[in-house]
Amino acid sequence: MRTRMRRIGVLTGGGDCPGLNAVIRAVTKAAIHHYGLEVIGIKDGFGGLINGNVCRLDEGGVSGILHRGGTILGTTNRDNPFHYLLRDNGEERYVDLSYLVLENIDMLGLDALVVIGGDGSMRIAMELYNRGAPIVGIPKTIDNDLMATDITFGFDTALHTATEAIDKLHTTAESHHRAMIVEVMGRNSGWIALEAGIAGGGDVILIPEIPFTIDGVCAKLLQRHDAGKSFSIIVVAEGAPHPQLGVIEKNCGNGRKVLGGIGELVGSEIESYTGIETRVTVLGHLQRGGAPSPFDRILSTRFGVKAVEMAVNGEFGKMACLRTPEIKAVPLEEAVAEQRKVPPDGELVRYARSVGTSFGD
Amino acid sequence: MRTRMRRIGVLTGGGDCPGLNAVIRAVTKAAIHHYGLEVIGIKDGFGGLINGNVCRLDEGGVSGILHRGGTILGTTNRDNPFHYLLRDNGEERYVDLSYLVLENIDMLGLDALVVIGGDGSMRIAMELYNRGAPIVGIPKTIDNDLMATDITFGFDTALHTATEAIDKLHTTAESHHRAMIVEVMGRNSGWIALEAGIAGGGDVILIPEIPFTIDGVCAKLLQRHDAGKSFSIIVVAEGAPHPQLGVIEKNCGNGRKVLGGIGELVGSEIESYTGIETRVTVLGHLQRGGAPSPFDRILSTRFGVKAVEMAVNGEFGKMACLRTPEIKAVPLEEAVAEQRKVPPDGELVRYARSVGTSFGD
Amino acid sequence: MRTRMRRIGVLTGGGDCPGLNAVIRAVTKAAIHHYGLEVIGIKDGFGGLINGNVCRLDEGGVSGILHRGGTILGTTNRDNPFHYLLRDNGEERYVDLSYLVLENIDMLGLDALVVIGGDGSMRIAMELYNRGAPIVGIPKTIDNDLMATDITFGFDTALHTATEAIDKLHTTAESHHRAMIVEVMGRNSGWIALEAGIAGGGDVILIPEIPFTIDGVCAKLLQRHDAGKSFSIIVVAEGAPHPQLGVIEKNCGNGRKVLGGIGELVGSEIESYTGIETRVTVLGHLQRGGAPSPFDRILSTRFGVKAVEMAVNGEFGKMACLRTPEIKAVPLEEAVAEQRKVPPDGELVRYARSVGTSFGD
Amino acid sequence: MRTRMRRIGVLTGGGDCPGLNAVIRAVTKAAIHHYGLEVIGIKDGFGGLINGNVCRLDEGGVSGILHRGGTILGTTNRDNPFHYLLRDNGEERYVDLSYLVLENIDMLGLDALVVIGGDGSMRIAMELYNRGAPIVGIPKTIDNDLMATDITFGFDTALHTATEAIDKLHTTAESHHRAMIVEVMGRNSGWIALEAGIAGGGDVILIPEIPFTIDGVCAKLLQRHDAGKSFSIIVVAEGAPHPQLGVIEKNCGNGRKVLGGIGELVGSEIESYTGIETRVTVLGHLQRGGAPSPFDRILSTRFGVKAVEMAVNGEFGKMACLRTPEIKAVPLEEAVAEQRKVPPDGELVRYARSVGTSFGD
Repeated sequence: MRTRMRRIGVLTGGGDCPGLNAVIRAVTKAAIHHYGLEVIGIKDGFGGLINGNVCRLDEGGVSGILHRGGTILGTTNRDNPFHYLLRDNGEERYVDLSYLVLENIDMLGLDALVVIGGDGSMRIAMELYNRGAPIVGIPKTIDNDLMATDITFGFDTALHTATEAIDKLHTTAESHHRAMIVEVMGRNSGWIALEAGIAGGGDVILIPEIPFTIDGVCAKLLQRHDAGKSFSIIVVAEGAPHPQLGVIEKNCGNGRKVLGGIGELVGSEIESYTGIETRVTVLGHLQRGGAPSPFDRILSTRFGVKAVEMAVNGEFGKMACLRTPEIKAVPLEEAVAEQRKVPPDGELVRYARSVGTSFGD
Repeated sequence: MRTRMRRIGVLTGGGDCPGLNAVIRAVTKAAIHHYGLEVIGIKDGFGGLINGNVCRLDEGGVSGILHRGGTILGTTNRDNPFHYLLRDNGEERYVDLSYLVLENIDMLGLDALVVIGGDGSMRIAMELYNRGAPIVGIPKTIDNDLMATDITFGFDTALHTATEAIDKLHTTAESHHRAMIVEVMGRNSGWIALEAGIAGGGDVILIPEIPFTIDGVCAKLLQRHDAGKSFSIIVVAEGAPHPQLGVIEKNCGNGRKVLGGIGELVGSEIESYTGIETRVTVLGHLQRGGAPSPFDRILSTRFGVKAVEMAVNGEFGKMACLRTPEIKAVPLEEAVAEQRKVPPDGELVRYARSVGTSFGD
Repeated sequence: MRTRMRRIGVLTGGGDCPGLNAVIRAVTKAAIHHYGLEVIGIKDGFGGLINGNVCRLDEGGVSGILHRGGTILGTTNRDNPFHYLLRDNGEERYVDLSYLVLENIDMLGLDALVVIGGDGSMRIAMELYNRGAPIVGIPKTIDNDLMATDITFGFDTALHTATEAIDKLHTTAESHHRAMIVEVMGRNSGWIALEAGIAGGGDVILIPEIPFTIDGVCAKLLQRHDAGKSFSIIVVAEGAPHPQLGVIEKNCGNGRKVLGGIGELVGSEIESYTGIETRVTVLGHLQRGGAPSPFDRILSTRFGVKAVEMAVNGEFGKMACLRTPEIKAVPLEEAVAEQRKVPPDGELVRYARSVGTSFGD
Repeated sequence: MRTRMRRIGVLTGGGDCPGLNAVIRAVTKAAIHHYGLEVIGIKDGFGGLINGNVCRLDEGGVSGILHRGGTILGTTNRDNPFHYLLRDNGEERYVDLSYLVLENIDMLGLDALVVIGGDGSMRIAMELYNRGAPIVGIPKTIDNDLMATDITFGFDTALHTATEAIDKLHTTAESHHRAMIVEVMGRNSGWIALEAGIAGGGDVILIPEIPFTIDGVCAKLLQRHDAGKSFSIIVVAEGAPHPQLGVIEKNCGNGRKVLGGIGELVGSEIESYTGIETRVTVLGHLQRGGAPSPFDRILSTRFGVKAVEMAVNGEFGKMACLRTPEIKAVPLEEAVAEQRKVPPDGELVRYARSVGTSFGD
C-alpha cells in the first residue's frame, strides 16, 4: 500500500445504469472499512469537478442503496470538461475547462479518482490521466459493447426488463394473432436484442451486425403462418439499419437526435406486405431503470472493491474489467480501443438459428 | 336449476386483458364440476360463431391457464356480426351476418352463451339477446370505465405494470435531473393515470376529466425546482386532450388511427418552456399483458362462476357486476348505459392534491 | 379548521406491514403541504412517547419512501405503556407508564396523534383517548381481520407474496408428482389462505373458520390422483386447528410461543395415509416484507390524508376505515369490537368450491 | 453428420430446476428444425426407460414452455436403474434393472439419449454409456457445485429468489431492530448463500467452506449495534455445519432425512447470547421454482442445441459444459470427478470481507 493514499473521489458519468449505486457503495465501504480512506462523491459527473459540487461519502450515506437503480451522485451526458457548454448572456459556446478539473482534484486532495462511466467518460478519463490525474476507471455500458470486459453491470438488468416485456407481449400476440414488434436498446451492437430475443423466444431478431430485409422478415412470418402459428414476436435493436433508409433517428427537440423509429417502420412495412396485424412497443428508458439484478449487484460490488484496490496499489490509468473468472486491471487506452459487436457467425447467433430464430437475412 | 340446461358456450371479445383465461377456466370448471354441463369454446370472438370455429373445453384444457395472460380462445376487434367486414375478390364490404350467429348458437345446441367483453361486445351481446340468444355477460375493460361494476379484472394488473414502470423511471429522473413523462392507457377516462400516478408518487397527473394547460404543468415543475427537487414524474393518460390540439391520434397504418402522442407533445413543450430535459415513455401494449394479479385472478374466478350460476338460473340478458362485496346480475342495457369517469372533485383527486400532486390545471 | 391545530404526531405500532411508510408519507405531506402543520415522528411505537425518542418529519424526510416496505419510524410489539416491561438490575417487572405518554404528548405540543396500528395498538389508543389524548387511528392488520374496514393496507401485498410462492411451487409439484403444502399467515382468520388459494389455484385450502379432517384432505388428493392429476397444492393458514391437536404453536425461545407447524404436521400425515410425497414451505416473514402493491400504496395514501383531515376537524377517538368507495371515520370502540372472519357459507368459499377446491371438510 | 442418426431421446433426472423446460425445448427444436430428427421424451427420468413411459415431442409440444419452471417430462430422485426400488406384495427390495434401460433404448430406436441431470444422474449416465448407451449429458445443479462447468442453469434464478427474499426481510429487520436469518440451499457448497448474501447486502454469511463460531457471528452483530445499526441480515447455507453439532438434518418422514435447521439453531443461539431479537426464514423449495431468468433461459438453450450437435457428431459419453465464452463437450468421467466449492481465500470471499461482510470466523 502506498503510504500517502488518504482520500479517494468517485464520480458517475454518462447515461443512467442499474448498478451504479452498488459500485458507489462498494467503493465507499471498501475505502473506509478496509483501507481507512476518506471518500469524496463528485456530483453530476465531471461537471462536479468544474463547479466544485462535491460531498463527503460515509457508510451511512451509502446504506440502503445497493438495490436502488440510478446514481445518488447524479449523472449527465453534458459534462465533457474539454468541450464544455458555457451559457453566457444567452450566448452558448464550448470551452476547455479541463484545467479546472485538474485544479480541483488537487484542491480536494484526491489521491485517486474513480470514474464510473461509458466510452465517452473513459476517453475523458484517459485524457485527464495523460495530464496527470490519478484515474481509475470502471466500465459502464448498458449495451454491453465494450471489448475489454466480458460483461458490464446493468446489462443483465436491462435484459430482464426486455425479456419480461417480451413475455408480456407474447400473450397479446397469441390472443390477437398479431406480430408484436419490440424495439430495444442497442445503438451499435445488438446484444440486448439478441439475448432478450433468445430468452423471450423471439421469432425474428434484427440487429445492427446482421443486415436484414423486409422480405426476409416477412418470409419467416408467413412460414410460421403456414405452419399454423398465427402470431410472431420480432425483437429489433434501435440501431438496426433499415434496408433502404439506414439507421433511423428521430428529432427529440432542441436540435438533438436520438435513435428510434425502426420498430414502427418495420411494423408498418410488415403490415403492408403481409396483411398481418402488427403492434409496436418501444421500451426506451425502462431498460435503464429498476433495481439491479443479483448478478449486476455482485459484479458492481466486485468492480468497486477492485477499483479501490487498484487506487491503493497505484495502478492508475487503468480500468477494472471482468476477465472470467477474475477482475483485472486493463490500461484505459486498450479498454476504449474496441467495441464488442455480436459476431454474425458466432455461437449465439448460430444456436439461435438452430432453434428456428430468423435474423431477417 | 332449469332441467334443460346442458351445454354452455363461452367467447372473449375486444382487446386482450389479463384475467380472461382465469374467467374461461372458472366458467369451464364450475360448469363441468359443479353443474355437470358441457362447455364449448368459441374462437376469436363472435367471428367463431360466424364461421363455426369452436372447440370442446374440458378441465384438462383449462388446466394451468389461471395465471396466464391473454385468452386461449383468441380475440379480435373485428368481429361485429351486425357489421362484418367481408373480403371478396379484392373487394371489401360490410354485411349483417348476425343471423349466422343465431343459427350457430342453435346448431351447436348452446343453452347459454357467456360473452366476456367490453363495451362493444356488450352492445352486440344485447342486440343478440334481443333477437333471442341466451346471453350472459361478463364485463372486461382494462380502463375500468364501466359504471355498472365497481371494478373489472385486468385493471389491477395494468396498474401494476404502470406503477412498476414509474418506479423504474424514478431513478433515471433523479439521476439525470429530468422530467420523465409516462403515457399510459385511458381513452376516455383517466383511472390508470390517476391511480398509477398516486401509487408511483407522480408529481403531475394529466387525465381526460381535468383539462390541463402547459402553463399549469410547468408551474408545478418550476415550483419543485425552486424547492430543490431537480426531477419530476408526469403521468399522462393517452386520451388527455392537449389544451390547443385536443385529443391526439396517430395513424397506425391501413387508415386506422389510434390514440397516442400526447406524451411526446407535452414533453417537448415542457422542454421548450422550462429548459428542463424531458424523456417520454409510452407503455402501450405492455399494460395488457402479463400474468394477472391475485386480485384480478380472484375477481375473474368470481365472475366466471357467477356467469354459470346466472345461466343455470336462466338470468339471460344480464351481466355479472361487482357491487362490493357481492357479485350481482345487472341488465345488459343498464350495464352499457354509462361510462365511469374520474370525478374531478372526488375523494381520490382531492387526496392526490393534498399530498402535493398537480393536475396541470 | 380548528384554529389551534399546529403540530401533529405520528407513530407505528405492532408488526411490520407493507404500506406503513406510504401512510407516514401521506400524513406528513398532507399536514405540511395542505394544512401548514408541523409533523413529529414518534420512534418505535408508544415506546417513543415514554422515552422521548422522536424526530421532526419534513417533506424531504418522507421523500422516496412511498414504495419502501417497513416503517422509517420503527415499530415493536413491546410498547404497551399500560403494561410496560421494565428491566432494572436484572429484575423484570411490568409497570404502568401511560402517564408519561400523556405528559409527553403535552410537552411535545401535539395537537393530534395519529396511531397506525393493529388490534393491540388500537386498544391502547382508545384507552389513551379516554384519558384525554387527541388520538386518530389508522387500521393495520396484514391478516385483514378487522370488521370495521372493508380492507386494510398490506393485505394485497401479502397476497401477492403468497400467490407468487404458490405459482413457484406449482411447477415443482407438477414435475415431481408431489403434494406441496404452503403455510401462510392467518392466526384467527383465513383470508390470506383463502384468497391466495383461489388466486394460486390451490386444490385444498385449510382455514381456522372451517374445521377440516386429514381424511377430507386425503380424499381430495386421491380423487385428483384417480383423475390422472399426480400433483396437488395445499394452502394452510398457520392458525388452522389440527383435527386432534388443535392450534399448533412452536416455542421460539425466551418462553415466547408463535403459531406454526400445522403445515409440517399435515404434510407428514398426508404422506403416511396416502403414500404421496409431500414437501412443506412456510412463508413466514416474507409476507410482511417487500414493496407495497399499487393498491396498498393508494389505500395507505388515502388513510394518511383522511387521518390529517380528521385531526384538523377535531374528530378524535376515531379510526379511518374503508367503506367502499369512501374513507369514513369510525369510533375506535366500534372499530376494535369485532374480528372479521371468513364466512364459511359466504360467496368466496362457495365459489371456490364450485371450481373444485376442497376445504378438507 | 453421421448418416444413421434418426431419433433422439431426452430425459430429466434428479431435483427440479428452472431451465429444464428450456433445455427440452432447445433439444427438440434443434433436432427437428435443424437436423430433421425425431425426438422422444422419456417420462420421470430413467424410470421412463424401465417401464416404457415415453412420448413423442414435436415443435407444438414444446411451444410456450421456454419460460416455464419445472419439467414437462417429470423427474424424480428414485430412478436409479442399477438400484431400483421394487415394491412387490408389500415387500420392498432393490434390483438392477439397467438391462431394461439398455433394451428400451434399443427398442425405441434411440440413436442418442440426452440426459439432463445432476451428479447422481450423470453417474448413472456414465455407467450406461460404459455399457454401450449413446449418452450425451447436460449438467443440472441448482447449487452450482460442478467443477466441470463455469455455471449451470437454475443457479441464477435461485439467486434471484434468494436475493428478493433478503430484500423483503431487510425492511422488517430495520423496522423491528431484529436480526433476520435466512436459510438458503447449499448442501456441500455455499454459492447461493455467498452470492445472495453479497447481492442482498447480508451482514453475516455462513457457508460450509468456512467454519464459523457463534461468537464470531455475535461479535459482528454487536459491532453493528455499537455503530448504531440496530438490525442485521444473516444468510446461512443449509449445509453450513454448526460449530458443535455439525451439519443439521431433520427427519422428513418415511425414514428420510433432509438438511435443514441450522438457521433456527443459529437464530436461537444469537438471541440467547446477545438478547437481540431474531426471526428465521427457510426458503426451501421456493428456490427451485419460478420462471427461469433470462440468463438461465439462454444458457439452457445453448446447452440444448449443443447436446444435439454432440449427438449428431457422435460425441457420446460427454457432457455439454460452459467454458466461458464457449460451450464445450467434456468427458462424463471428468465432469463428475470434482465438486466446485467456494474458495475460502478466493476473490469473492475477499471482496465480500472488504465491504464489511463477516463469515462468522
